[in-house]
Amino acid sequence: MLTLDMVYSASYKLKEVLRKTDLIPAPKISDKCTVYLKTENLQVTGSFKVRGAYYKISQLSEEERKRGVIACSAGNHAQGVALAAQKNGIKALICLPDAAPISKIEATKAYGADICLVDGVYDDAYAEAIRLRDEKGYTFIHPFDDENVIAGQGTIGLELLDQLPDADAVVVPVGGGGLISGVAFTIKKLNPNIKIYGVQAAGAPSMEESLAHGKIERLSHVSTIADGIKVMEPGELTYSLCKEYVDGIVTVTDDEISSAILALMEQHKLIAEGAGAVPVAAVMFDKIPDIAGKKVICLVSGGNIDVTILSRVIERGLLKSGRTCLLNIELIDKPGQLRGVSEIIARLGGNVISIHHERASEGSDVNGCYLRIILETRNHAHIEEIRSALTEAGFLLR
Amino acid sequence: MLTLDMVYSASYKLKEVLRKTDLIPAPKISDKCTVYLKTENLQVTGSFKVRGAYYKISQLSEEERKRGVIACSAGNHAQGVALAAQKNGIKALICLPDAAPISKIEATKAYGADICLVDGVYDDAYAEAIRLRDEKGYTFIHPFDDENVIAGQGTIGLELLDQLPDADAVVVPVGGGGLISGVAFTIKKLNPNIKIYGVQAAGAPSMEESLAHGKIERLSHVSTIADGIKVMEPGELTYSLCKEYVDGIVTVTDDEISSAILALMEQHKLIAEGAGAVPVAAVMFDKIPDIAGKKVICLVSGGNIDVTILSRVIERGLLKSGRTCLLNIELIDKPGQLRGVSEIIARLGGNVISIHHERASEGSDVNGCYLRIILETRNHAHIEEIRSALTEAGFLLR
Repeated sequence: MLTLDMVYSASYKLKEVLRKTDLIPAPKISDKCTVYLKTENLQVTGSFKVRGAYYKISQLSEEERKRGVIACSAGNHAQGVALAAQKNGIKALICLPDAAPISKIEATKAYGADICLVDGVYDDAYAEAIRLRDEKGYTFIHPFDDENVIAGQGTIGLELLDQLPDADAVVVPVGGGGLISGVAFTIKKLNPNIKIYGVQAAGAPSMEESLAHGKIERLSHVSTIADGIKVMEPGELTYSLCKEYVDGIVTVTDDEISSAILALMEQHKLIAEGAGAVPVAAVMFDKIPDIAGKKVICLVSGGNIDVTILSRVIERGLLKSGRTCLLNIELIDKPGQLRGVSEIIARLGGNVISIHHERASEGSDVNGCYLRIILETRNHAHIEEIRSALTEAGFLLR
Repeated sequence: MLTLDMVYSASYKLKEVLRKTDLIPAPKISDKCTVYLKTENLQVTGSFKVRGAYYKISQLSEEERKRGVIACSAGNHAQGVALAAQKNGIKALICLPDAAPISKIEATKAYGADICLVDGVYDDAYAEAIRLRDEKGYTFIHPFDDENVIAGQGTIGLELLDQLPDADAVVVPVGGGGLISGVAFTIKKLNPNIKIYGVQAAGAPSMEESLAHGKIERLSHVSTIADGIKVMEPGELTYSLCKEYVDGIVTVTDDEISSAILALMEQHKLIAEGAGAVPVAAVMFDKIPDIAGKKVICLVSGGNIDVTILSRVIERGLLKSGRTCLLNIELIDKPGQLRGVSEIIARLGGNVISIHHERASEGSDVNGCYLRIILETRNHAHIEEIRSALTEAGFLLR
């Protein structure tokens, strides 16, 4: 059974290799409440996952250490287990689906783990890991449904109580539920007045639905850019801990997550992965109940996002916040049309980023052509001003 | 005259509004030495500049406070002065060239400063600021050549001595020289054994050349992506402090800076602007003398980089490190050519990001066409492997 003792013991043990990450005020995230960011994206390996993995592995018997550990993950758990095994002088084998991003595979290898690429998706890699565990006697390190793993994650709760003892609420990402179980258990045991809210992706609300229905639900389909919390089913242990200690679970969309990632980059110079940004998204888009005037901690759980995905998130976030806009204008193919358009845009202070000019697209008049312009703009009102001026001047916006 | 007293006094004063930013171990930056990052990009306003501005403004007389302050900057100094004035209840006017990025203007406004957009470039905005100072009696807040400003920046030195008392070297960005003057003065006064190195952009080496020639040099032309240190001429005060307290100045190229920005994002989840990344670039590309086995602090001075520029830096950094590659292949325009190319790429594990297929480009055979492919790759060797295989199969790489 999970006890505070285990969390304290984990906290002592983790000092060997981990950092007490900073709690940073983030006044621009919300004008309703006072937001603080717990920067676990700045943790060793770029995510909190190493806490649970390290404590779990530190508790293995001599016999288990000799046989080594195995895990299945394409992400933060893989790197956490790899580093924890390396620091403990234990062999680690990580099963990954063969479509995993090159960067994640390389990062896991860099911590000295052996990699087993499995043909197929996550479930295939998981099946192979279990098969290898049974065949070779490795210890399987579960990503969340394990008391020692949960105790490791709970150490964040101790740090938060130390860093902001008068916090009113802590908002935590939820995938399988290991992180929130540890944090909620620890904080509620010591100060039951602090509210603990979980945040899931709208496309993967397994814990939310399970709690709503009063039993563990397995989703038939999950879809979100927050791959760190794209989990089909909560654990048994995490489900029952959430039921007991968590005050509520809310969900956020991929667009809201993108906006939160962008806000963290621009306003706080921090890279968060999708899963790490969901608490900020929940606060920004007003999903958390009753937080006006309160001190709210957003747990930014990790920062391991592929930079190529980050580029796309930046684009999407800029579009959503009205900082860029895409205009499709149907022109008659005669001289001077481009000049007319660019005069209006320049006069209104739009900054042209790219132009694509194309004749005779499908569906357009054979004499017509399309102008596809991407603009840097100030906000949605600015975009509306430019669109209106173009329409008034007789240009056909699509 | 600058004294340690002033730095200590600034340090006490700054506690009102600023954070003691974290010092984070960064083992992946170099395998030669042990690197630590002083994360001033996580400072309030996203840069160290607020330290000097705040202390300077806190020292103004009652009379000067009533008249308000003026500054000229499109960047971190603008935001630093704006916030410092706001916190001190003083009116601030910031002159900016009218081509300044929308995001910087909005950020400065958000701290409550009045903005004066000046037609032209930085020098025009500066001239206007001086004119307004003379006309209206505002106090001009110099970005670097001012003892109180330098004392404010020096507070970072005190923090570093507290956070890593046994550091061997501190590597600091240099533009006008205010930051390094304060840090070098403070550290050398307390522990002369710690080496202080400055880093400038290769396209704006004003302090390096001035020290080399033994007199203040004004560059005729500056060019670098690190706009925070794109300075044509050092200050008189900063020049003489650097001459006395700095152990050496090195330079880094824009490509090296891009790689450093990318490394900070991927490995440490931190957004650094060009100027903030130059110390990391200098260590990564082995510009600092005699640091094998040493403890080296890189001062990441700021993180205010436009996200659109960041997207381009990511692309450039990925290309430079062999993580993406661009292939231009000349094909004969007949069926099956694309299949041949894609088979080879798939077999060797390249991941296609984009394809552009174009007929009858200028300079190619009229029957020919070009295939422009962007690939995600592991490293330069991987790219070479793919290029060789394509060439061997008879495809013409351009």
